[in-house]
Amino acid sequence: MTQPLVGIIMGSDSDLPVMQDAASILDELGVPYEMTIVSAHRTPKRLYDYADSAVERGLRAIIAGAGGAAHLPGMAAAITPLPVIGVPVKTSSLSGQDSLLSIVQMPAGVPVATVAINGAKNAGILAAQILGASDERVRDRVAKYKRDLEQTVLAKVAIMEQGA
Amino acid sequence: MTQPLVGIIMGSDSDLPVMQDAASILDELGVPYEMTIVSAHRTPKRLYDYADSAVERGLRAIIAGAGGAAHLPGMAAAITPLPVIGVPVKTSSLSGQDSLLSIVQMPAGVPVATVAINGAKNAGILAAQILGASDERVRDRVAKYKRDLEQTVLAKVAIMEQGA
Amino acid sequence: MTQPLVGIIMGSDSDLPVMQDAASILDELGVPYEMTIVSAHRTPKRLYDYADSAVERGLRAIIAGAGGAAHLPGMAAAITPLPVIGVPVKTSSLSGQDSLLSIVQMPAGVPVATVAINGAKNAGILAAQILGASDERVRDRVAKYKRDLEQTVLAKVAIMEQGA
Amino acid sequence: MTQPLVGIIMGSDSDLPVMQDAASILDELGVPYEMTIVSAHRTPKRLYDYADSAVERGLRAIIAGAGGAAHLPGMAAAITPLPVIGVPVKTSSLSGQDSLLSIVQMPAGVPVATVAINGAKNAGILAAQILGASDERVRDRVAKYKRDLEQTVLAKVAIMEQGA
Amino acid sequence: MTQPLVGIIMGSDSDLPVMQDAASILDELGVPYEMTIVSAHRTPKRLYDYADSAVERGLRAIIAGAGGAAHLPGMAAAITPLPVIGVPVKTSSLSGQDSLLSIVQMPAGVPVATVAINGAKNAGILAAQILGASDERVRDRVAKYKRDLEQTVLAKVAIMEQGA
Amino acid sequence: MTQPLVGIIMGSDSDLPVMQDAASILDELGVPYEMTIVSAHRTPKRLYDYADSAVERGLRAIIAGAGGAAHLPGMAAAITPLPVIGVPVKTSSLSGQDSLLSIVQMPAGVPVATVAINGAKNAGILAAQILGASDERVRDRVAKYKRDLEQTVLAKVAIMEQGA
Amino acid sequence: MTQPLVGIIMGSDSDLPVMQDAASILDELGVPYEMTIVSAHRTPKRLYDYADSAVERGLRAIIAGAGGAAHLPGMAAAITPLPVIGVPVKTSSLSGQDSLLSIVQMPAGVPVATVAINGAKNAGILAAQILGASDERVRDRVAKYKRDLEQTVLAKVAIMEQGA
Amino acid sequence: MTQPLVGIIMGSDSDLPVMQDAASILDELGVPYEMTIVSAHRTPKRLYDYADSAVERGLRAIIAGAGGAAHLPGMAAAITPLPVIGVPVKTSSLSGQDSLLSIVQMPAGVPVATVAINGAKNAGILAAQILGASDERVRDRVAKYKRDLEQTVLAKVAIMEQGA
Repeated sequence: MTQPLVGIIMGSDSDLPVMQDAASILDELGVPYEMTIVSAHRTPKRLYDYADSAVERGLRAIIAGAGGAAHLPGMAAAITPLPVIGVPVKTSSLSGQDSLLSIVQMPAGVPVATVAINGAKNAGILAAQILGASDERVRDRVAKYKRDLEQTVLAKVAIMEQGA
Repeated sequence: MTQPLVGIIMGSDSDLPVMQDAASILDELGVPYEMTIVSAHRTPKRLYDYADSAVERGLRAIIAGAGGAAHLPGMAAAITPLPVIGVPVKTSSLSGQDSLLSIVQMPAGVPVATVAINGAKNAGILAAQILGASDERVRDRVAKYKRDLEQTVLAKVAIMEQGA
Repeated sequence: MTQPLVGIIMGSDSDLPVMQDAASILDELGVPYEMTIVSAHRTPKRLYDYADSAVERGLRAIIAGAGGAAHLPGMAAAITPLPVIGVPVKTSSLSGQDSLLSIVQMPAGVPVATVAINGAKNAGILAAQILGASDERVRDRVAKYKRDLEQTVLAKVAIMEQGA
Repeated sequence: MTQPLVGIIMGSDSDLPVMQDAASILDELGVPYEMTIVSAHRTPKRLYDYADSAVERGLRAIIAGAGGAAHLPGMAAAITPLPVIGVPVKTSSLSGQDSLLSIVQMPAGVPVATVAINGAKNAGILAAQILGASDERVRDRVAKYKRDLEQTVLAKVAIMEQGA
Repeated sequence: MTQPLVGIIMGSDSDLPVMQDAASILDELGVPYEMTIVSAHRTPKRLYDYADSAVERGLRAIIAGAGGAAHLPGMAAAITPLPVIGVPVKTSSLSGQDSLLSIVQMPAGVPVATVAINGAKNAGILAAQILGASDERVRDRVAKYKRDLEQTVLAKVAIMEQGA
Repeated sequence: MTQPLVGIIMGSDSDLPVMQDAASILDELGVPYEMTIVSAHRTPKRLYDYADSAVERGLRAIIAGAGGAAHLPGMAAAITPLPVIGVPVKTSSLSGQDSLLSIVQMPAGVPVATVAINGAKNAGILAAQILGASDERVRDRVAKYKRDLEQTVLAKVAIMEQGA
Repeated sequence: MTQPLVGIIMGSDSDLPVMQDAASILDELGVPYEMTIVSAHRTPKRLYDYADSAVERGLRAIIAGAGGAAHLPGMAAAITPLPVIGVPVKTSSLSGQDSLLSIVQMPAGVPVATVAINGAKNAGILAAQILGASDERVRDRVAKYKRDLEQTVLAKVAIMEQGA
Repeated sequence: MTQPLVGIIMGSDSDLPVMQDAASILDELGVPYEMTIVSAHRTPKRLYDYADSAVERGLRAIIAGAGGAAHLPGMAAAITPLPVIGVPVKTSSLSGQDSLLSIVQMPAGVPVATVAINGAKNAGILAAQILGASDERVRDRVAKYKRDLEQTVLAKVAIMEQGA
């Protein structure tokens, strides 16, 4: 079994449909990861242990998704020296504005690399970019991914311009 | 020395000018308290230990103030079974809207009793009301405080109506 | 019949689907309660009488839910010395942002312990925590509830990690 | 002494610098008024009595100003059948957005005629317009006031166009 | 045919489902009204003529509903000396926050009596309250309407308390 | 005297410090303009006349600035077929969020070309770009202005890089 | 084939249902246009080339629609001296508030003429108004369009007044 | 001279007081960097060249700060495969809410690692964490920095508890 380099955690299994996008893009980019539930509010000790052991377990980055008063990404960042990527999950009352502010507005000293509301795919890409800083193969796959994005758009351009 | 019944904690000493109001009203209402700094993000282990030992140290309620991505009240509430009162501290960029949403929008199972932005005085009164549930003398002091509030307003009424 | 210790009030019967969560968790935690409609705007005298008589009727805390320009929790808190827990009910136009601000931004002297938008379950837990300050059995049930929450999450962890 | 037709009330004497504008314009428009402090939260009984007796004391409209979780206008409107005009007072944290939503978002059945944040002058004009419905002299003064407004603007037009 | 005392205008026929509530309550309160479309942006001259002739046509108040950049109520208030009641209509993108701010934040000198988003029923009641200042029968019907509201709530109280 | 091609109007002389920027950049770009006060709310007839005569007086675009419930740009656009550029003026309570939404959220059929809050300079540039569609000299001056902007930045680059 | 005078670009083919409204009204007003996909983020070089060649390819204005962190209109405006009209596309999380602020709040020197959220139709009309500055036939068609708008409203007036 | 590993760019020299914090912490953590002005809107070609050459010039991460309609971070991320960290700079009208949304709400495929409004210090720490993924010495310095943070808080704890 491959050693996971990225830990994907989420506050609740109801966040899985959003956070699955991070796993999918890491699969596509060939980055090994683990994915589990860590609730800052319901399992605070598990959060402490997970983040505290992340370096020694070989992780290189953590992706944490949560909604509402979303404390998981910031608390993970408080405990581990690894870079933590935060995904604000959309909420039913405030559409994720609460999640976004709870995650991005961290005090000086403890950053969380925040992506868009429900932006788990981008969290995965960012994790790959971070790993790519020291792994040329990952960097090349990210670069290829971006070229593919461009090609996809250009293919749609052709369709729209023919249709016009 | 009297055993403190309320713990007032704040994320940073820069929150003291706001949080001092909680201490002052508890003094006025004769409720013993302790006050210290506990940073969820800079001293996460201290937060864990503080909240985890709160019951056995004799506390009956915790007042926690923090600003920005304010995780202190919610994390304390995650660890202790005591009631936790959250004070959203006003911030320079977003005027405390970030603090408010980070504190009040807690998930089901882990409440934080949230007061107004910079509402530390009300946090103190609320703590006294909670203690008053089992301590008649505190309850009477809260009731007297409310009657005094009314008298203060009525005195101002007299001044304004004479002035008009 | 058991003497109710918590009063659950709401501005309209349309708030019942939300406020029912407070009743359910109080049932689960073995806290006797009463539940009724008190409209600040349509039955102001009833509000006055309800809040004014709450102490002598044996209540120890009030949970008040309302939406829009939500005055019920704050007005109840103005009249009774008991702790009042406010539940901002989600609204169709502004998603409960109006309810939240109308409830949480109380002036100094008259706190309302505010929970999340539609957070009636947490209001019930908070009421139990308040009663737990003087009733060890309630305190133990709250502590057990929190441990059960943790177990539920851990069970889901097992499912997700097996599925991964 | 002239019988007051408009009651100007405010939640706190700190609101006086804003609410004075309502008094000044009523003076200018020749409408007799009374002005006092009525705090929904600190003197709830006084609020009840004030609003309940307003009709029999000869008032024809009430102007109520308050800030934050601003319940004074809505509660006055709940108690009296008179038209109530609400003035959201600007607050230090949320600039009066809390005051505005607390006042304007009233439920069906109990309207508050809301003006702009700190718009006490307009509240006074609105009160005069309401009285003008049955008092031709007041109506004429309002009409003259509007013509004067226009003249003031036109005088400034002349200055700016000469200056250009 | 009875002379209309209230003019109900709206910016578009798509506002009719909301504005109909104003007409219904005026019917219920026995206040004669007229209802039509006046678009500030698509028929500016019609707006000018409508508002300019309102007094001489016998109107005593105008209810104006509009959504988005909602200029109809404010422009009507600029032209007529009558009291103008503004109804912010809920919009699909911003849920009526744009309508509310466009209507309520009027400059000094030109008030619009603003009600809640989609609050057309309250606009009708407010119009009746304004007419009630000089018409005792209308005033009595408004007072009765408020008593009926209270009875409706009390009937629901009975149902909920039996059900509990 | 040169025939003005752009009309700069504002709701109040208090808007002049902001709107002056539009005049200055038009001076710099050699576009003749006129500048005056037209208040939608205090001088509605003047607004109608100004906008209605704009084409025949030779104007080719109108720049309109206003704050709060800002109706001037949209009403001008309703009356004239010319392109209207709206400048939301920053307000003391809501920082121009009210002005922005009141100006930009126009209904289908009546556009206002909205610039940033207090963005009068950009309004002037936009007016020049519109005139540049048919006047090569203006177009060249706009192009030169953009090149100058770039040079100014590059000069600052040199300073910062030397300083580093 | 007619030379296009307006370029309609959008960040993604998912924006087409919104942006199609710009094309339709330009068809109706007889203004030749081209329409294609240009993604600021996925095809940055294509964006540079498109905007950089716009003048020489004969375009006179660009309409750019994008959602979320919407950079397409502003970046196009940075590159071309032509007037650029920005259409904030409604987003699922924040309803287009992110799109609006990303487009309208441009720095001094680089304006984007912003229309309402999803206001592509108005973007088309604005483009026609810009062309109308030098093309009398287009100007006449815009004027006729506005008269037709008025007639449509008046027809609905007749229906509503008959129905009343 | 040491090869810079991090590029700090900002849209304007007025952003320097904020962005300087990123440079200072990188100095403290021993990470070589370069700092310059790159304006997305005033020097779009320079932006393209800067981001396009970043990899070959040896950079491993880019920190980009900008305010208002802040396109610099997202456009840099569109062009380079390196991780880009975005710093929303506080603005005078909207306090950086516009900057935050313009930076964080990036579409799928092109992430920007966003930090708090004016959070340049955290951007520097995040850059060091990214480099630390492959450079043990940097990783150790980040870990030491976090331990120092904790010590600083604990020293303040001692002062407050003595003072109490």
